[in-house]
Amino acid sequence: MKVNRDFTDVTVKLWLSAFQTSSVLMACTDQLLMEYGITSEQYDVLAGAKYLSDRVKISDLATFLRRSSNSVSMLVDRMVKAGLVRRLRDRGDRRVVYVILTSKGQNIVEQSSPGMWEFIKDMLSPLSYEDRRTFLSLFEMINRKALEHLNPGRDIEGIVRDRAERDAELMKRVPAYTLTASPQSKRQVAKRKKAS
Amino acid sequence: MKVNRDFTDVTVKLWLSAFQTSSVLMACTDQLLMEYGITSEQYDVLAGAKYLSDRVKISDLATFLRRSSNSVSMLVDRMVKAGLVRRLRDRGDRRVVYVILTSKGQNIVEQSSPGMWEFIKDMLSPLSYEDRRTFLSLFEMINRKALEHLNPGRDIEGIVRDRAERDAELMKRVPAYTLTASPQSKRQVAKRKKAS
Repeated sequence: MKVNRDFTDVTVKLWLSAFQTSSVLMACTDQLLMEYGITSEQYDVLAGAKYLSDRVKISDLATFLRRSSNSVSMLVDRMVKAGLVRRLRDRGDRRVVYVILTSKGQNIVEQSSPGMWEFIKDMLSPLSYEDRRTFLSLFEMINRKALEHLNPGRDIEGIVRDRAERDAELMKRVPAYTLTASPQSKRQVAKRKKAS
Repeated sequence: MKVNRDFTDVTVKLWLSAFQTSSVLMACTDQLLMEYGITSEQYDVLAGAKYLSDRVKISDLATFLRRSSNSVSMLVDRMVKAGLVRRLRDRGDRRVVYVILTSKGQNIVEQSSPGMWEFIKDMLSPLSYEDRRTFLSLFEMINRKALEHLNPGRDIEGIVRDRAERDAELMKRVPAYTLTASPQSKRQVAKRKKAS
């Protein structure tokens, strides 16, 4: 019974901590993006429209953000009004709508992205290389489980493979400033080199 | 240079995976809560109003959800219109506003919570007890870092201690149905007992 109680305790604490971490990080990025006049959600759409591919559809953004097309469509509506993006219908297939950055949206995502990346590096700075790999593999386990939940009876291997391919494409488009290692990560890499 | 590149790769992948996991889980809980006519965000407010304390203030909810009081206030406005909660001013201090569940809100949170908890257990089922402890400690490292970021120059130890106390209080209020272990967790507990 004691073991059961411990198991439940750590499970509730983990869920609570994951929930709180995600909320506190969003509060940080909202604060960070305030000077650019956008929210974290809007940043995700702008970054998606810039880095995902040359021509991003609402459905691509929905896949990237893992939200319904309908909810992304409403988000895009507000961003059109704010002059951040515009919609463009495909000439061949009028049902397909692309989301295009305006020059205002383009400027904002370019100006705010290096700060966002610095923030990410800062948040992860207490974690060693091994910690990051462990963290990543734990997320992947949950991610896979959630994909199974959302796609009952479907070929999860296929979905995971498709997603890995998309992510690999996305990784190629990761902008150059991400490659500048922070002093923290340099220190850790040096420490790791010394240790091995 | 190779090591630096690996370090950056795992960092970008980790951030992307965390972001995607959080989005896909929200898509799952939105789907789960659809039959009750509420969103994941609304569920968080209802659960906060029910379990945080006997009299929940907007500022308590903001702390729990780690969002600004202003953003929680807007969320509560919509929920008042939907008949899920009502606002109650403190008789002594008119500036203080409590968020009270209506009987509709009360019913919905009671009916939906066991399913939410089953979902959480299902999502975490691939993780062993040790995995959960590791996952929790990694979140706590990021959480602490983000709290430092949001409260520059403040006593982080004090904030962390306050939060731990609040979480311990919250854990005491965790409803009884969470104590029913799932078959999966029972299996893992049995496995662990056998191993030790």
